[in-house]
Parts: sequence; C-alpha cells; structure tokens
Amino acid sequence: MKSDIEIAREAKLKKISEIAKEIGIDEEYIEPYGKFIAKVNLNFLKKISERKDGKLILVTAITPTPAGEGKTTTSIGLSMALNKLGKKSIVTLREPSLGPVFGIKGGAAGGGYSQVLPMENINLHFTGDIHAISSAHNLISAVIDSHIKFGNELKINPAKVFWKRTMDMNDRALRQIVVGLGGNTNGLPREDGFIITAASEIMAILCLAKDLKDLKERLGNIVLAESFDKKLIKVRDLKIEGALTVLLKDAIKPNLVQTIENTPAFIHGGPFANIAHGTNSIISTKMALKLADYVVTEAGFAADLGAEKYLDFVTQVANFNVNAVVLVATIKALKYHGGVNKNDLSKENVDAMLKGMDNLKTHIENLKLYNVPVVVALNVFPTDTENELKAFSNNCNAPHAFLRAFQMGSEGAIDLAKLVTENISETPHTPIVNFNMSIEEKLETLATKIYRAKKVIYTDKAKSKLKFLKRHGFENLPVIVAKTQSSISDDPKKINAPKNYDFTIRDFELSAGAGFVVALAGEIMRMPGLSKIPNATNIDIDEDGNIIGLS
Amino acid sequence: MKSDIEIAREAKLKKISEIAKEIGIDEEYIEPYGKFIAKVNLNFLKKISERKDGKLILVTAITPTPAGEGKTTTSIGLSMALNKLGKKSIVTLREPSLGPVFGIKGGAAGGGYSQVLPMENINLHFTGDIHAISSAHNLISAVIDSHIKFGNELKINPAKVFWKRTMDMNDRALRQIVVGLGGNTNGLPREDGFIITAASEIMAILCLAKDLKDLKERLGNIVLAESFDKKLIKVRDLKIEGALTVLLKDAIKPNLVQTIENTPAFIHGGPFANIAHGTNSIISTKMALKLADYVVTEAGFAADLGAEKYLDFVTQVANFNVNAVVLVATIKALKYHGGVNKNDLSKENVDAMLKGMDNLKTHIENLKLYNVPVVVALNVFPTDTENELKAFSNNCNAPHAFLRAFQMGSEGAIDLAKLVTENISETPHTPIVNFNMSIEEKLETLATKIYRAKKVIYTDKAKSKLKFLKRHGFENLPVIVAKTQSSISDDPKKINAPKNYDFTIRDFELSAGAGFVVALAGEIMRMPGLSKIPNATNIDIDEDGNIIGLS
Repeated sequence: MKSDIEIAREAKLKKISEIAKEIGIDEEYIEPYGKFIAKVNLNFLKKISERKDGKLILVTAITPTPAGEGKTTTSIGLSMALNKLGKKSIVTLREPSLGPVFGIKGGAAGGGYSQVLPMENINLHFTGDIHAISSAHNLISAVIDSHIKFGNELKINPAKVFWKRTMDMNDRALRQIVVGLGGNTNGLPREDGFIITAASEIMAILCLAKDLKDLKERLGNIVLAESFDKKLIKVRDLKIEGALTVLLKDAIKPNLVQTIENTPAFIHGGPFANIAHGTNSIISTKMALKLADYVVTEAGFAADLGAEKYLDFVTQVANFNVNAVVLVATIKALKYHGGVNKNDLSKENVDAMLKGMDNLKTHIENLKLYNVPVVVALNVFPTDTENELKAFSNNCNAPHAFLRAFQMGSEGAIDLAKLVTENISETPHTPIVNFNMSIEEKLETLATKIYRAKKVIYTDKAKSKLKFLKRHGFENLPVIVAKTQSSISDDPKKINAPKNYDFTIRDFELSAGAGFVVALAGEIMRMPGLSKIPNATNIDIDEDGNIIGLS
Repeated sequence: MKSDIEIAREAKLKKISEIAKEIGIDEEYIEPYGKFIAKVNLNFLKKISERKDGKLILVTAITPTPAGEGKTTTSIGLSMALNKLGKKSIVTLREPSLGPVFGIKGGAAGGGYSQVLPMENINLHFTGDIHAISSAHNLISAVIDSHIKFGNELKINPAKVFWKRTMDMNDRALRQIVVGLGGNTNGLPREDGFIITAASEIMAILCLAKDLKDLKERLGNIVLAESFDKKLIKVRDLKIEGALTVLLKDAIKPNLVQTIENTPAFIHGGPFANIAHGTNSIISTKMALKLADYVVTEAGFAADLGAEKYLDFVTQVANFNVNAVVLVATIKALKYHGGVNKNDLSKENVDAMLKGMDNLKTHIENLKLYNVPVVVALNVFPTDTENELKAFSNNCNAPHAFLRAFQMGSEGAIDLAKLVTENISETPHTPIVNFNMSIEEKLETLATKIYRAKKVIYTDKAKSKLKFLKRHGFENLPVIVAKTQSSISDDPKKINAPKNYDFTIRDFELSAGAGFVVALAGEIMRMPGLSKIPNATNIDIDEDGNIIGLS
C-alpha cells in the first residue's frame, strides 16, 4: 500500500471556500489559511446559535496496545461514510502536536484512505494555534519571574511556582531545569521545567471556552503559585489575562479542513487525555452540531480515560448530548490483552483473542452505565484471519461492524455508518459523576464503576493536597483522573480486565482556569523525549516543496 | 492625535487578493492568511525572475537616542508617497517580534498615518514565521541533547555546545539555565540558555536564503558544537536539515500586506542588526524589485550598523544594487547628540542641535564612501521650532526634506519622495568591504572608515577565537560587527561623533549557516527582559475581539 503522504498527494482537494459553502458557512465568516484551510469567525456561531443540534457520535477505543487501534481513521472513515449515505456529517478532531511528529509517533491526521488534508500542514504548524498557546503560556512565566525580580509585590514564593514553561517539542532535557542563573540582572534562580504545549492548562482552557469572554475569565482564574503568606496567586493578579486573550484571539476560532473524500472536518485544540479532558474544542464541536446531522468526534486514549471525561465532564460543561458511542477494537489488540507477545500478534490465536475480549466487554459495560448506545467497530487488519473474525462476531455482545476505512476510505466504513444510524439514541445520556459530589465521592464512583477497583487509597501527599484544595474552596470542582492509558487500572502492567485492586491517588493538581482538579494516579509524562533515531531524520523536502517522511 | 490602533481600525482595507492583483501577482500564487494577509508562493518568483529590477531605496538613520527616529514610519510614508506620485512602489520591512510587543517597545508596524495593516496581526503571530523559526531552532537543541544521551556517537562535548535554545519572548530568567537535571531519564545536565528568536541564526539564514535548496544547504552548514576530539559538529551531522527545511517551508514565502493607504508591503523576516544583518528577507525584496519601480527597504539600527551591513554584505549576497539611501534624523535626536538631557529635548536649543549634527554628518560621509546618493529625511515633531528647522536646513550638507508621514501619511512624505526620485543613482553602489579580505582586514576597514576608530584591538579571547576560525577554514567569511547601536563607536556612552579611539573586538562567533563571522565589540543582549510593568498589562480585548493597548 502507498504511504500516507503519497495517498494524500494524489487526492483532489476542493477549495476550502467550497467546503464551507457546502455546509452553509457564508464567505464573510471564513478566514482562509492558504487555499485548503480556514478559520471560522465566532460571529458565525452566534448567528446560528438557535439552530437545533445534530446527533453527536463519540469515537473511543479499548485499552491501547503496541498494535494501535485507529480511532482517528475510524472517526474520519465513519464521517465520510455517513456523508456517502446522504447524511450531512462533520468530523471534529484534535490538532496534532509537533513534538510527536518529529519524535516517534508521527502525525495525527488519520492514515491510508481516511485522512484529513492537507496532512502536511495539519501535522506541522497548521494555523498556529499551538504556537499561540505556547506564547500565552510562556508570557505568564516571563511575567512571574519578572515580578519576582522587580520587588515581588505579590510575595510569590519562588519555591512554590506551580506554573512551568512550555514548548511544542519532545525535549526531555527541559523537564527539569534551573532558571534565573547568572546573577541579579537575570533575576532569581529557581527550579523550573518545561511541559509540552498539549499538556498546558491553556490548551485545556482553549478547548473548554465558550467565547472570548469565557476564555479571558478562565485565563484570569489560573492559579500559578503560592505566596509566602500562603495565598494563591492567579493570572488575574498579574493583570495579563487581557494580553493572553489577545494572543489567543485567532486560536479560539475553529479550523475547517476536508477529508480525503472532500467532506468537512474541524480540527481544533488538542489537550492530553490524562491530565486534561482529551478532546477537541467545545466551540468547534458546537459549530459542527449546528451545521450537520451527524457529528463524529474522538476522545483521547481508551474509553476509561477519554470517553469517561467526555461523557462525565465535557458534555456537562458544553451542554452536549452524546447519541451513540463507537468503540474501536482490533483483533491484534485483543490478542495482546489475551496475553500474546507483541511480536506474535500477526499469528492466528482465537483463544487469546477471546480471552482479550474481556477488555472490550469491560469498556462496553462501562459505557452502558451512561445510557448511551454502544457500537463496536472492529478495525480489520490484513493479518486478521477468518476464524478470528468469525469468533469475534460470535462473542461480541454489542452491535458491531467490520471496518476497513484505512484501506478503502468511506467504502470500508459503510457498514459501521449504517449500524450507527440504526443505534442513535434520542434520549439524553446520563453522566455517572455529578459535579456536586465531593472530590472523594467522584473518585470513588470512577474507581469502582469504571476502573473496577475495590477501593481508593490516598497517599499522604494526596491527603495533604486534598486539604489544600478544600481550604481554598475547590472541593467541588470536577475531577480529571490522570492515569496510565495502558490499563483500565492505575498500573500499566495490568492488561485486559483487571479488577478488585486498590486504586491509588498519589497527588492532586489544580487547574482552576480550566475548572477541574487533576487526580494523579500514576506518573504522567508531560514532556516526552525523542527516541535515539527520531522521526525528524526521516523527513525531507525537495526543491519543489514536496515533503517525504511525514505520516 | 488618535492612537495607532484607533487609526488602524478606521482604515478601509482592500482584500489582499486585490492588492496582489494590482502589482501583478496571479491569484494562483497567493496563499491567504485571513482576508488581508497573504504569502506568495516562490514559484511566482521563478516565473518573473527574468524581469528587470526596480530601484532600491535603503532607509537608515542617525545614531538612535531615547527620542526615537522613525525609520519604519519613514519607509512606509515614503513608499505611499511614491505611489501617490504615480510610481509603482513597494515597501519591504522586517517582522515584529512578540517579545518587544509585550515588553517595553511595543509593535513594529509603523505608527500614526504611516502603518502597515492589519497591525494587530502583524504585531502578534502574523503568518507564524517566527514560531516556525523557533520550532526549527529548538528541534536542533532537542536532537543534540537526545544524541548525547543515546550514546553520543558524534562525541559532542556538552561543555562546547554553542547552540542555545530560543523563544520569541522577553524572558531574562531563561538567559542562563541548567538543563537535563533529574537523573539519567532526562539526559545529561549541562549549562544552556535561551536567546530571543530574532537572534537565532535560523532567522538570519531564512532572510539570506535564495530558495528552498539554498535554505537546506545553509541549515545543514550550521555549526552547533565541538566534539571531544575538536571536530566541529554541524546540523548535517545530525541528519535533520531536511526536517528543519520542512518546518520552514512556508516561513520562507514572503508575506504581502498593505499600508494604511492600500499600497503594497512585504513584511518578511526580522534578524537583529548587531549579531546579524538586520533587514528583511532577500527573497521578499527580490520579489518586490521584480514588481515595482521603487522598492523602499529598511535596515536595523543606525547607518553604521544596518546600512553598512546592507551595503557591504546583503547586497553582495543577494546581488542587489542600492540606488539611493534615505537617512532619517530628528531635531530631538540631534539635540541629544549635542548634549541635551533627554528630559529637555522638547525645548528649543539650536546650538545643541547644530553640535549634534556632527553625528548626521558622519553618517552622510560614511554613506558616500559607497558611491550612493544620500537624502536626509528630517522627521518633524510638533515640538520642533521654526528656528531649529531653519538652522537644520542651512547646515545640512546633503539634499534633505521635512517629513510628516506619522501625522499625515503620504501627504507628509511627498517632498521626500520627490527628492528621492531626483537623487536616484543609475550606477552600482560600491561596497567598501571585499569578501576576499581577511577577517582582520575587513575589521580594520570598518573600524577606521565607518566607526572612525584609530585602530582595532583584539582581546586574548578574540585572538584565540580568530585562530580557531582560521584553523577550521573560516578566515574569509564576511564579517558582521556586533556593537552598540547607541554610538558610532563601540562604547554606548560616546554619543555624537566619536573618533580616534581604540575599537576593541572581544570575541568572535561563527554563523557558518548564515555564512558570516560575528565580531563582538560589546555586550550584546540576545534575550531581552520585561520591564517592571510590562506592556502586556496594558493590552486587552473586548467580547467582540477589539484590541486595545497595542501600538
């Protein structure tokens, strides 16, 4: 099969103004970035705000394995297939981060015959949203250190600055650093570090903000540091929430692109799915819901992380209703959960696959707690055997379809699309976590119902941080659990369907601007590193501007 | 008078496609960024490469003082006035950096009635060029540290990494840092620092590159570090020059905008004028020369820095010919050079002004060494008195015009425009520095002829670095002098017209990718800081997206 970039280059793209016109966005609201990408002015959302929402389909997956699952290609393929069935459908996705593009993972614009285009631009600087977030984030840091240097009126304790710097790069050398060296001219030395921009609270904020006013409010609420007299220092105390909002004035506008089959796609925002909520911006999904019959959106990592956060948190903030969930699985991944070594996943092994289906079943059971229809998409690989596929069908206790969107585009997703349209719920889904519960109640609910733990254990550090949160009035914030994506539990080694274990909360972090508390149930990497031979060494461009090595 | 942003908001902008059409750029070569900004595809430059060049007018200034001079408003006003006179004129300028926008200086899109628009976007992320440069720059750093961690095949000496990291921010706490702390997972600790992106060698390279191929070649040539066995490590050794070029594939394309009077402007690239050559990209000026009768371009800082580098270096690299130089002066600045305290510059003082005219005369004499006509633009301020203006006219030994472009736009620059058209040279200007001279010969020429020094002194460090450069075969690279902009000499305290002093070279730095050696004749700030109350605290935006506080 051809490489992603070869397939992408052969596609015939429509001008983005045409794509916009087809979904009813007037020319005056379109701000083009090149011929094939546009931002949509937020005034358009105001104009169409009274329209009825389309149906929202959430794409999620079983617990990820080294074999991959293909959520993004599924989302793109499903949306293209819905369009082929004569439905108006828009897919809304997250923006790729540059770090992984040059690191190990490559791009995030789908793959094969289910891509969003122009993939080169989407995978590179795109419309500059992530750069804008980096600038806003780092302006805060520069102002903090400058404030400390020039008299420190707010009495910021340099040892209690929670706000790290950021860069959209896989750069492990920046994880832990000392800044402000070189004497008084350069300020005061203190420990600091960089996180990747996707992990910035500003990324989460941008994806949750309803409009410019809400954005500014949330930015002002960010808690940065503690003062020597134990007060919390917010962005608002530095008086720069206006400047930050100015830096984000274009980043807040949804990005419109097209799929390889010229159907519309919004690619906007990309927060992590462990320390944040892991899905594209509320604004872009809201806009899509006003324009389409079906909106297909994707949540990061597996269902216990991305889908849980979407169904419990994002939908309550955004006032969305999810009408169906598509749960992606692969035969290979099921075999991995069934105990097969990652080098043997191409060999037929029906028994292991059946064993690994416990992971799938757990996610299905979990999702049904939300009173939402679940459709399973089995993403078919060339190595899957007839026996395996048949055994899967016979043992899958939910409506399911075989998917070949990577190899065939919409044609490979037609069965799934039909199945989804037949399984759309008309009644609202029901979150299992109520915003009014205490932090502990929320965690108890998630740990026992979703993560299948016996009980929640809090380390001393977590207990002390919980007191801190309560003292400062944050005891009723929504809770975002940061845990491994490799297991339903808090232990990456527990594959398949762990249960009856102790779920340990090690620490809490406050994202007061985004409006949630992060409960840390594991080591979470906020700044990835490059591999020994990074993907950057494979990427090149010729004299005419043709790129190779991007995928 | 209204604020810059108020004036900007009242302007009626034409669509950028119209501006492009008026100067003959076909629709197919235009890549819009919103409605009023476009990048021009480099294939267009190929297509028109056989056309004859228009006339090139270089705008420079006397030695800067706290009073300011107004080079950018002069350049914009002059180009608008040339258009008003029925000439086809394009102004080519540098891109503003975000650091100063949020720091102390504010934006760099002109001012008053001589602005380039949309000033908000130009002063913020614009088309993302500077962000792209930051990404490319920092990818190199990440790969260096990753290479060292994973076995260090190239034997890079961590204590001899010349390549610092970069950020487009005024952030003094990042000037001197230690990275790689936290144990083996995070790599090896070493000293490092951040420079502002405008000071990155990649910024200089982007502005000197002729096309994608030349860009990749120059990026590959960057010297990053020394190995334990004293070899120089280049970007090419890391095999990432292709990935860097990919990151810069759009940044290399000129940005087309318009002035407040709807005349065309290219704003592209923005290297420092001390440690680099200080002017917009060669590609954008080349494109402008193929499209206009007159191209007005600006060089950074005063004539001894920006104009010297333009006339001696940029034009030889680009094969440009400068047909006239406009030297900007103000009565206030002349009084400052004449010894008046900065708080008294609004008071009439003809004698001080006449004394300060020695600075102007020195720059005029210097420029005449290049066999290029010099026209003086006296940028008139409301506080200038009749007596002062009359005395200026009587004592200025070069053609001169009074300029009121800030207050009146093109109307205020008509006299200057007429004078410039009458003083266009048809013969090539003659550089005073020959690329074949040795580094010492080049410095001797500049120090004695331009900086008016008695002789050049080299510190021991400079002598040793000179040997290093010769050992590695760089003895014939062009020389870029990095010195204070506040004096013609190497001492910022020596205002007006210093002479017969010792010009001291403290150190050299190699910019092998950009293709020059930097001779350091002073402390050069590569990472500015914020002031106690940064401009960021003045900037705000309302619910409808109207910005205040940008200038």
